[in-house]
Amino acid sequence: MSVTAAAGFAAAGVSAGIRPSGRPDVALVRALRPAVGCAMWTRNRVQAAPVTVSRRHLELAEPQAVVVNAGVANAATGLPGEEDARTTAERVAERLGIRPEEVIVLSTGVIGPRLPMDKLLPGVDAAAEALSAEGGDSAAEAILTTDNGSKTAIVARDGPTVGGMAKGAGMIHPSLATMLAVVTTDYPLPSGVEADRYLRPAVERTFNRISVDGDCSTNDAVVLLAPRGEGDPVLETAFVDALGEVCESLARQIVADGEGATVVLEIKVAGASSSEEAHAIARRVATSPLVKTAAFGHDPNWGRVLAAAGSAPWNGGFAHLDPDRLSVAFDGTAVFRSGVPTGLVPELGGAACRIDLDLGLGNGEASYLASDLSTDYVRLNAEYTT
Amino acid sequence: MSVTAAAGFAAAGVSAGIRPSGRPDVALVRALRPAVGCAMWTRNRVQAAPVTVSRRHLELAEPQAVVVNAGVANAATGLPGEEDARTTAERVAERLGIRPEEVIVLSTGVIGPRLPMDKLLPGVDAAAEALSAEGGDSAAEAILTTDNGSKTAIVARDGPTVGGMAKGAGMIHPSLATMLAVVTTDYPLPSGVEADRYLRPAVERTFNRISVDGDCSTNDAVVLLAPRGEGDPVLETAFVDALGEVCESLARQIVADGEGATVVLEIKVAGASSSEEAHAIARRVATSPLVKTAAFGHDPNWGRVLAAAGSAPWNGGFAHLDPDRLSVAFDGTAVFRSGVPTGLVPELGGAACRIDLDLGLGNGEASYLASDLSTDYVRLNAEYTT
Repeated sequence: MSVTAAAGFAAAGVSAGIRPSGRPDVALVRALRPAVGCAMWTRNRVQAAPVTVSRRHLELAEPQAVVVNAGVANAATGLPGEEDARTTAERVAERLGIRPEEVIVLSTGVIGPRLPMDKLLPGVDAAAEALSAEGGDSAAEAILTTDNGSKTAIVARDGPTVGGMAKGAGMIHPSLATMLAVVTTDYPLPSGVEADRYLRPAVERTFNRISVDGDCSTNDAVVLLAPRGEGDPVLETAFVDALGEVCESLARQIVADGEGATVVLEIKVAGASSSEEAHAIARRVATSPLVKTAAFGHDPNWGRVLAAAGSAPWNGGFAHLDPDRLSVAFDGTAVFRSGVPTGLVPELGGAACRIDLDLGLGNGEASYLASDLSTDYVRLNAEYTT
Repeated sequence: MSVTAAAGFAAAGVSAGIRPSGRPDVALVRALRPAVGCAMWTRNRVQAAPVTVSRRHLELAEPQAVVVNAGVANAATGLPGEEDARTTAERVAERLGIRPEEVIVLSTGVIGPRLPMDKLLPGVDAAAEALSAEGGDSAAEAILTTDNGSKTAIVARDGPTVGGMAKGAGMIHPSLATMLAVVTTDYPLPSGVEADRYLRPAVERTFNRISVDGDCSTNDAVVLLAPRGEGDPVLETAFVDALGEVCESLARQIVADGEGATVVLEIKVAGASSSEEAHAIARRVATSPLVKTAAFGHDPNWGRVLAAAGSAPWNGGFAHLDPDRLSVAFDGTAVFRSGVPTGLVPELGGAACRIDLDLGLGNGEASYLASDLSTDYVRLNAEYTT
């Protein structure tokens, strides 16, 4: 159900022929009641045209709809690309009876080419026709590129419902979000500014703590839509938890389906001098090609973990670390304790691997999810033009 | 000839049985006349025992000899590891009739295990026996690990001679040097402090501008030895040039023989707001898995170059870049000019690929050498325990 799990939203996914495979490639999500919303965007200096246009739209109005196309990123396309993104928003607005600035436009795919508007606009029309309260799953299908399967998450307990969809696969690295995700809820919020207050910390803890390949895309976005209103304060905690769980689940799905991924690495750093340094170290370990290839080979190679942890960029130098106080464990088995190898060699073999580092310096903590680096990752990226 | 190209040095490489393959694994270099010297070390927070010990030695005396073992890095071995490094220096000193603090000890290989001193010390004895003015090449053989071949460079023109050897292969990423290199010259220098004044800028421009996998090792070192004295000022420029050329050649050989490397990528950034930002961008492009896998696939994928360049960490944010002013060329063919794709698709296919980025913002320039990311890199690192 993804984005239509929460009451008050309709969605659809259709094939517009942008992707040569003929797979679904245009998704539309709309709020059926007046909505508010917010988004977090890639911090890349090269921002795709839809990012530029959608940011401007968000300054002018509360979003009522999100349109996504897969196959062409509409990035590095200059002013003509922005014109294409605006034209897309105009067509959505026309079909839904809303204003263009109430539409968020997202694109994912190859950098460079212009959007094939002759295919995209009829696709928008078809998606608007197909909108339904059961359309969440088809929308989630239509935003994928090299993903192996769709990524959706729902929390529907007693309190507010939160549902979302995401696409990931390549160029997955936070800086911020670094993929596309659309999350909806039935918990009312008074404004986009207020929505941002909830979305930001959830994204920081989840989407911003994952890495497939350390690359940060030009198109990344996480969007939250909620009905306009005042949420019941009694339910606020439940909403916060549900939003966090949905983001966490989508982030984990993105890593598990990273290009060529065979193992999900969970890196937990504790005992750092500060949480910023814990983050720097977790990130460095999560992006080390040597740690990631060792994970692919099911090798509990703590030497590579040490070397990576010791060179985590921080504050113009490296994050604090004293090898004599450092302890490292793989899947709960200590391999290095306070500077001394234990001699234990844990057997790794599953689809998940947890690496714990305790720095023994302070109270800073952070964690990171990463995929391994496999021969298939290289093959996919040597052959596929993104 | 490598380290024995310059008159006044003897060297040897022997098999001590540290490497299971039985390949040469202990190298010794000594100055035949009173020498001065200096070294640049890894900045990794996890520093191998030989690094700790050798730094201390350099504070106490001018180095007269360098001993290197391959196979075991003597890293993460704590105080017993330092004791092993000291014992190694003592044995060298005893055999050569010099003081232990005049010996620099370098190790490369697997992190974690203790040095097999019962093999290493007899190896030191054998190397001391074998020292000869023709031993440069055998020394260069004995410092290798996963390298496919030895790396040596000599400049012997009219002026001073400079010769050197290096080992590279994995964990090659500057931060500083990130591999082992020993360079000798017959150009006299008054002190190690003075030698450092020459070595530092040469290393910054060469060894610190290469990347195989973005990982920074615990053992990296570049050592320079020169006869003690006063160099002829008329020959100073020739010495500086020769030193730079030898470092440049060794650095390039390390990249070309990077683990699994099939292509040497030369990334040139011009027109940046500052040279620091040019460096940050060149480094980001050089370490992007997506750019490196594209290079492996001979794909002139400028979209990935843009995405990487736009997310170069600098000063807590990203280096300045305006896509509308940016131009990118592959092997001299412009693919993106002032923000607009040219539509040209250069044919890539050789063992080298040059990527030029002109940011159109200022006068900052920098360049970087990197290997591509191949399926063999992953295979090597998933199977080999470093």
